[in-house]
Amino acid sequence: MGKKIVVIGGVAAGPKAAARARRLDPTAEITIVEKDELLSYAGCGLPYYISGMVQDRRQLMTTPVGVMRDPTFFAKVKGIKVLNRTMATTIDRKAKEVEVRNVDTGATQRLPYDKLIIATGAEPVEPPIPGKELENVLQLKRVEDADRFREHLQGGACPMVAIVGGGLIGMEMTEAITACGSGVTVIEMLPRVLTMLDPDMSLLVENHMRSRGVKVLTSTRVERFEGDENGKVKAVVTSNGTIPVSLVLLAIGMRPNVTLAKEAGLLIGASGGIYVNEYMQTSDPNIYAAGDCAEKSCFVRGTGCFLPLGSVANKEGRVAGSNAAGHVDRFPGVAGATALKVFDYNIARAGLSVQQATELGIPVISAVAASPDKPHYYPGAKPVVLKLIAEKATRRLIGVEGVGLGDVVRRVDVAITAMTAGMTVDQVAGLDLTYAPPYSEAMDVLIVAANIARNKLDGLMRGCTSTELQASRQAGEDLMLLDVRSPDEHQAGAIPGSTLVPLGAVRGRLAEIPRDRRVVAYCKSSLRAWEAARILAGAGYTNVEVLDGGMMAWPFETQQGA
Amino acid sequence: MGKKIVVIGGVAAGPKAAARARRLDPTAEITIVEKDELLSYAGCGLPYYISGMVQDRRQLMTTPVGVMRDPTFFAKVKGIKVLNRTMATTIDRKAKEVEVRNVDTGATQRLPYDKLIIATGAEPVEPPIPGKELENVLQLKRVEDADRFREHLQGGACPMVAIVGGGLIGMEMTEAITACGSGVTVIEMLPRVLTMLDPDMSLLVENHMRSRGVKVLTSTRVERFEGDENGKVKAVVTSNGTIPVSLVLLAIGMRPNVTLAKEAGLLIGASGGIYVNEYMQTSDPNIYAAGDCAEKSCFVRGTGCFLPLGSVANKEGRVAGSNAAGHVDRFPGVAGATALKVFDYNIARAGLSVQQATELGIPVISAVAASPDKPHYYPGAKPVVLKLIAEKATRRLIGVEGVGLGDVVRRVDVAITAMTAGMTVDQVAGLDLTYAPPYSEAMDVLIVAANIARNKLDGLMRGCTSTELQASRQAGEDLMLLDVRSPDEHQAGAIPGSTLVPLGAVRGRLAEIPRDRRVVAYCKSSLRAWEAARILAGAGYTNVEVLDGGMMAWPFETQQGA
Repeated sequence: MGKKIVVIGGVAAGPKAAARARRLDPTAEITIVEKDELLSYAGCGLPYYISGMVQDRRQLMTTPVGVMRDPTFFAKVKGIKVLNRTMATTIDRKAKEVEVRNVDTGATQRLPYDKLIIATGAEPVEPPIPGKELENVLQLKRVEDADRFREHLQGGACPMVAIVGGGLIGMEMTEAITACGSGVTVIEMLPRVLTMLDPDMSLLVENHMRSRGVKVLTSTRVERFEGDENGKVKAVVTSNGTIPVSLVLLAIGMRPNVTLAKEAGLLIGASGGIYVNEYMQTSDPNIYAAGDCAEKSCFVRGTGCFLPLGSVANKEGRVAGSNAAGHVDRFPGVAGATALKVFDYNIARAGLSVQQATELGIPVISAVAASPDKPHYYPGAKPVVLKLIAEKATRRLIGVEGVGLGDVVRRVDVAITAMTAGMTVDQVAGLDLTYAPPYSEAMDVLIVAANIARNKLDGLMRGCTSTELQASRQAGEDLMLLDVRSPDEHQAGAIPGSTLVPLGAVRGRLAEIPRDRRVVAYCKSSLRAWEAARILAGAGYTNVEVLDGGMMAWPFETQQGA
Repeated sequence: MGKKIVVIGGVAAGPKAAARARRLDPTAEITIVEKDELLSYAGCGLPYYISGMVQDRRQLMTTPVGVMRDPTFFAKVKGIKVLNRTMATTIDRKAKEVEVRNVDTGATQRLPYDKLIIATGAEPVEPPIPGKELENVLQLKRVEDADRFREHLQGGACPMVAIVGGGLIGMEMTEAITACGSGVTVIEMLPRVLTMLDPDMSLLVENHMRSRGVKVLTSTRVERFEGDENGKVKAVVTSNGTIPVSLVLLAIGMRPNVTLAKEAGLLIGASGGIYVNEYMQTSDPNIYAAGDCAEKSCFVRGTGCFLPLGSVANKEGRVAGSNAAGHVDRFPGVAGATALKVFDYNIARAGLSVQQATELGIPVISAVAASPDKPHYYPGAKPVVLKLIAEKATRRLIGVEGVGLGDVVRRVDVAITAMTAGMTVDQVAGLDLTYAPPYSEAMDVLIVAANIARNKLDGLMRGCTSTELQASRQAGEDLMLLDVRSPDEHQAGAIPGSTLVPLGAVRGRLAEIPRDRRVVAYCKSSLRAWEAARILAGAGYTNVEVLDGGMMAWPFETQQGA
């Protein structure tokens, strides 16, 4: 008899662990227990199924050549037994058995194991909002949830949909719901959406959503949902007024599903996930955990965190499966990488934001580069805004954020790799990345951002973020805003209250630039402003800053014909 | 008086060095000497100007906001003096002076320097082929060369164009010339094009070019060019017959322009470029060199090399400019990164190919992953084939190659960063890269490739490249080719002589699979073949290989209705 491996959970980490264990141990008896009907489906693809971009739900649960990943597939192709519609109710660690119950028949059985892998995933958080039990107040987790959204949204049957929560799922769903012809209002309790980004970056995303007709209500608390006589939701009552709606998506967050593990007495980490070591082993050496239910170790923060992502789940599943099958493999932890698409904006980040680093007491500098993602002369070049965060003491890259119409994901993935290796921004600036006009500028935006970070660390450049500048302006600070672009660019749109001195004229017009006031120079990106700042430094000015990212990264009001 | 910095060369590294020096030293007197009219243009953009994709040559020499980078721009905006149409004729190292001559007036002058930066670039190699002086036999280096191509190609005036040389410029120009409505024949002396790639990868590119109507003649030597009565080329006489043509592009390679440096007694490296240390300093501490004329240090090979790329030139120019201005900066060397687009194929590589590693005596394994660049259910997913090369002894990633319709550049850039950091394939497999369906699979093709490499290094998987298999087939070796796909897939196109046993049936049909012969299993990518190989290993088979990359990476003939 082979080794008995039981896997609880059949969506992402579970099937991956089972398949890996099977490849390593051809004689093991491997069983997957899954409480739902469907297995091994692409949960991250649900918004695209709702939008109709993915037309058939089967596409989310078939192999690339169209074979359905059902119990028969697992049995025949993978040599793995699957019990679906079967709930694991108890883990008996002493007897090394899992008690399971068929959700249809109620029949129970005990599955003995040599090694157990827990992959019970995560669940949407249910906020204690009165009226959340009304019909048409939905969450999004399973394929069946997506089916309900499709039913409701079909044919524009819902003129107005409210999304409660401005996080990742809420943002992805704005595009999906808009694509179905419905209007969308996002309601977020915090002062801005996508708080995984620094405010100067998240405000750019907010602007893009607004430009696509999405209403974004920040600093707004949902008080209750109101229903009609049929028990269907008809309005969301918020701290900012009442919004008539016909459908609500509750997306205020996810939390790891750890009830079973907790009841079995396994250690739970501070972040709420099941504690695991780098072998994905829980506090019981015969039990592994992988995927959304397991705590992640974030090597940038140095602490445990919750990060429900299919990519991490698959990698962890592979490690758990290897170790359960008797091989040795380790999972090195996460960088906190996240990417999402919201309409035409690509958004990606990893590591620490300036805000997070500040909270952790880590002195950092940040650098923002704004540029086309390929040469401006190459058709299809699109702008990106890339922000790097570097630790002052070590010059190490510890965070990256990118937003824009262009390809930010490539730059963020390279930055993640550099962060993982502990590279300094100096090393990032020296990276010999590929170059050809269809793909990037000769000085890629990532290299430019790293060089800006170096200039700041070397004391050559002082930056000012858009949000800092806006706060100064709103506080009525007496500063000089110096637009060093051309008169045409200035005319087309400038920050209100700024003075035009084109870069070529700066050397000759120093008399117009005060020496006793704070000067913030800006241009389209920030290159000309940086050259202006160097000219002013050469002329003895000591209080000159460059607006990080220039107009390309400016999320606030502009004035035409200034 | 400020420090005197003279820069010879005004295209890429030169202007970058001058601009950087200016920013660091506001009082320096900085002069650029350029023998041609035009400055600071995007040489890498010339194929796209020839194809008409970039319509106006001005776009190649203006800033992103449309300002021409001419001597007036440099004087006014950058504070840099430019002498164009001025040839540097002698470097007098003793007197620290450069003698220059205006190419129009013949007037000479001597420019004193404290620091000199040589950025004289590279020139196309002129092969000693009889008839190369005929009209319509062109090279491509300057904007004026591109103008000549446009004149000749306009309105389909050249029905057939020969490209001599299957390297980077030749390949990029196949698309540009085809876009002008001309037929293209590529003539390459070696047995294949793009020898920077391993043959299994370069053959995929060749197939793609042929599918677009390009004629590719490999192992073919050009004997001479024949002209008509007007001195225009009319035919290329090759070792494989005579080809009637009306235009020829000679693109057999580039070589660094080092005459001036050599005459000044500066050390020249083994690769033919000017020797520089990591500060970009030549053998004369007051003279720097940067860009195509300077030897690169390749940190993968550990030797000097020639790599004429705008990205490297810009980085080196920045370092040379910093050091010339009295700051300290270093250039860490190159990974040999190269990218190009040929029709709809994206191609990128860095580090060592298997062929190069073998020549250097480094034992390696290679891993090929073939997969869509995003989930198969997401619209617009396109296939990529990615090859990783890892050193056996250290498990370090030392090479990467990617080709395909999908996004290979991102994966190669991440691999380059990992190589630069000295990561093992185990570390690459653990990278927490971004994940969302619009951008990648949950297990990205790079992670999959790294895991394949690990399986091979751990002795779990034995691979066989397409070219190895083809050689065995052609040698008439008695092997079993095992197609583990579905009957439909097999029917649609299989490797001739293969036997169909779908993966799900392998366990039950072991009797049909010989134990005493070499078995090569394959499927669409290589995942199912790998599972089949593990089933066979579990059943005691000892001579089973997996076809690297499967049918997605198979460049040879297939058979329908097998």
